[in-house]
Amino acid sequence: MKELSDIKEYYRSIYNIEHLMDICYWDQTTMMPENSFLARAEALSEAELIIHEKKTSQAIFDAVEKSLLDNSLDNITIMALLSAKKEIEQKRLLPISLVKEIKKVTCQCEYSWVKNKEINNWQGFSKDLTQLVELVREKANILSEASGVSPYESLLNEYEPMMKTDMLDNLFEEIQIWLPGLTERFKSNSLNRNINQKIPIRTQIKINKEMLSELGFDFSRGRLDVSAHPFCGGTRDDIRITNRYSDSNFMGGIYASLHEFGHSLYERNLPNEFLGMPVSYPCSIGIHESQSLFFEMCYGYSDSFINYLSKKTVKYGLNISAGSIRKHLLKLKPNETRINTDEIHYLQHIYLRYLIEKDLINKNIAVNDIPELWDELSLKLLGISSGKDHKNGCMQDIHWAAGFFGYFPCYMLGYIYASQIHKKIGNLNYEETLLWLRKNIWLKGAFFSPVDIIESGTEDKIITLYARDMIIAKYENI
Amino acid sequence: MKELSDIKEYYRSIYNIEHLMDICYWDQTTMMPENSFLARAEALSEAELIIHEKKTSQAIFDAVEKSLLDNSLDNITIMALLSAKKEIEQKRLLPISLVKEIKKVTCQCEYSWVKNKEINNWQGFSKDLTQLVELVREKANILSEASGVSPYESLLNEYEPMMKTDMLDNLFEEIQIWLPGLTERFKSNSLNRNINQKIPIRTQIKINKEMLSELGFDFSRGRLDVSAHPFCGGTRDDIRITNRYSDSNFMGGIYASLHEFGHSLYERNLPNEFLGMPVSYPCSIGIHESQSLFFEMCYGYSDSFINYLSKKTVKYGLNISAGSIRKHLLKLKPNETRINTDEIHYLQHIYLRYLIEKDLINKNIAVNDIPELWDELSLKLLGISSGKDHKNGCMQDIHWAAGFFGYFPCYMLGYIYASQIHKKIGNLNYEETLLWLRKNIWLKGAFFSPVDIIESGTEDKIITLYARDMIIAKYENI
Repeated sequence: MKELSDIKEYYRSIYNIEHLMDICYWDQTTMMPENSFLARAEALSEAELIIHEKKTSQAIFDAVEKSLLDNSLDNITIMALLSAKKEIEQKRLLPISLVKEIKKVTCQCEYSWVKNKEINNWQGFSKDLTQLVELVREKANILSEASGVSPYESLLNEYEPMMKTDMLDNLFEEIQIWLPGLTERFKSNSLNRNINQKIPIRTQIKINKEMLSELGFDFSRGRLDVSAHPFCGGTRDDIRITNRYSDSNFMGGIYASLHEFGHSLYERNLPNEFLGMPVSYPCSIGIHESQSLFFEMCYGYSDSFINYLSKKTVKYGLNISAGSIRKHLLKLKPNETRINTDEIHYLQHIYLRYLIEKDLINKNIAVNDIPELWDELSLKLLGISSGKDHKNGCMQDIHWAAGFFGYFPCYMLGYIYASQIHKKIGNLNYEETLLWLRKNIWLKGAFFSPVDIIESGTEDKIITLYARDMIIAKYENI
Repeated sequence: MKELSDIKEYYRSIYNIEHLMDICYWDQTTMMPENSFLARAEALSEAELIIHEKKTSQAIFDAVEKSLLDNSLDNITIMALLSAKKEIEQKRLLPISLVKEIKKVTCQCEYSWVKNKEINNWQGFSKDLTQLVELVREKANILSEASGVSPYESLLNEYEPMMKTDMLDNLFEEIQIWLPGLTERFKSNSLNRNINQKIPIRTQIKINKEMLSELGFDFSRGRLDVSAHPFCGGTRDDIRITNRYSDSNFMGGIYASLHEFGHSLYERNLPNEFLGMPVSYPCSIGIHESQSLFFEMCYGYSDSFINYLSKKTVKYGLNISAGSIRKHLLKLKPNETRINTDEIHYLQHIYLRYLIEKDLINKNIAVNDIPELWDELSLKLLGISSGKDHKNGCMQDIHWAAGFFGYFPCYMLGYIYASQIHKKIGNLNYEETLLWLRKNIWLKGAFFSPVDIIESGTEDKIITLYARDMIIAKYENI
């Protein structure tokens, strides 16, 4: 590799392999016959190793280093090269044998989670999780030693670059100041206000497609399909949104579509100039979630959207009023799991997981301490005891089984970021909102840190009060 | 790589990349939104190059050479290693720049074919085809020089290893002796005997799925979907059959399913021990087509299958008699294109293409001579003039646009092989037939040459007379 163009072509080839992986992963969640699981896992692991090897090769390291000596480079290119160099150095810290081993044990652990969750068998699952946690700690120690931050923070930074646990701690504590009072204040919202109308799934799919299309989702470069869990996959050239429908939960489908639509807009509008280089990717999980949550929790609760949705139901002979949509959405659901609960309790769910995983990685607790600690925190933060119901307690999420430690707090950050954007955007109409997001978030890729992107876009510091204001405005509105 | 197990693992990694390509190719024909075409083409090309590099690396060549020195190897392993060595040497003949260029121009030419076929524009297409043919000739010359056979034969051998053009010439000439008489003999079959009943596509899909399942297609490791052209894709761990349906052509869907089912059985039952090594792949296109044609043209015309099919139509309230199914199937259709014509004229379609492509690659004619020569041969072999209707004449097939030169005669070979298998199997029942095919064809992978596999399985030489007998038996039967 001699020229900058060679470097770009090299990274483009990485992007191309990822394209194949992304489509096959989508296929796995939507189309794949059940018994092809093992062959698919092996094929996807293979591609991941190829990418790892490509991303850590001496050839690309030398080429990037050499390119950086060129005095005529523009700033954007320098940033692209510097972040590439940083990524190479970072990825090179981990021995390939460890990368392979984590991949293997993760597959095993995910499988164990699926199997044991069904039968509420914590003991069966914890054996596999312990094995995975040991490997993840090994990885975290290597990263921590190189970066000088705690093991947990080094993992967190894979999802949220430059984020400090100190800052997370502060944000969560700030939330603890105002959140518990809101649960009390809006407890009458826990009365049953569900929309009980049953709506055939075929009709729901039709409405969701029509809605996405009207919101601007480009079906000539994307799809909407069915999978067990809503998901935005594929690649920016071919975005694949999935959803799941229940005939008795029409709103669940609509707001999941909105959520994934937010993800899709971000992916589709990332900068293409340095395709495959780190700067061309989503800046962080927090930023990604801020985009999905913005559409689900902010735009989706606007009068204009709720009115639009109500009219849509009239068109399909369902006739659900804007008022009953709002009432349905704002029901408090403290007893539900993370993915089914309300916005207020959601933040507590995240805090609970954050406290546990931070201790787990920093070796303050062992895997087998999880159920007890979970129950204790659940009682304290959510007011409910999970007891021995691990299935709906500490085994409810796939994240730890998939080796995602440091991921959960990004959901809280996404919510805070979204509320700040919501505050900043104010009364912009839909088109103006898209323009603002494109300019201030999407096109920035990973050229800047998440906090920099939010702070410079919103011209404000990261604080939790806009989230509080947003919750109050919503819940007082009914 | 030091051990045989390393070599096996290396090739398994190639198989894994192919898995991703195969699923993405299936996705392209069934699911992909239209505007994702270019990104997908780039992603698939990338993987092809990675495979090419892996298959020609010095590391694997050295490892295979060294392994072959081990005196304790069994015969099967020696064969696997020798054919790997041969493949490496063969693939190394082509400079990577030429491989890349052919890939690029092929994408361009396929696109040009789609666009220009629509508007019957030979001139527009021939410009791109000329560019491709020049590159393919360059490739053929390199291969020809190394192997000592003609340029055309060197391309043919990529699809049908060890096959000689002399043998093809003899077989086609043998066919010319008996085939034209049959057209005359059965011309009354060209009377309209179509089944005119319109059958909703949803019902057809249901029947096709049920039929495949009853024939033994494993839906826990495979799918049946809709695409523009029937196709058997995916990977042996996850077979993806596609089909197209027309409400006025129920039989077309059924027999296309049977055809692809034959392909799928072959793929699913190939030997797995040396996964990714050349011996684990289909032996040849001729053998592959022999399996699909066996199910479509031999098993599909058996009394037992036609009765089964008739009963199936009764179950779905359609009530089509075995007699009318047979009559419908045996209609002569000389005026139709290759994929729509009857068995007798099909062989002439193939002969026509064979004569043209052989001359084209061996430089006896130029791309711009094709339309005239096509018309001349069409008149001679099929009794029809294509005139200036290039769309249904020399532009009807995608093969040349896709760079597949040497592929067409494999269809004729497939038909001959299928008829020989049919003759050998005689009155075996369905289960026994599957057992015979598994033992004599499928599990042989590419350990032997196609001719060896057919001759040793059927205990007979390759001749065309069983094909003649089969045609006569079918067509005289109504």
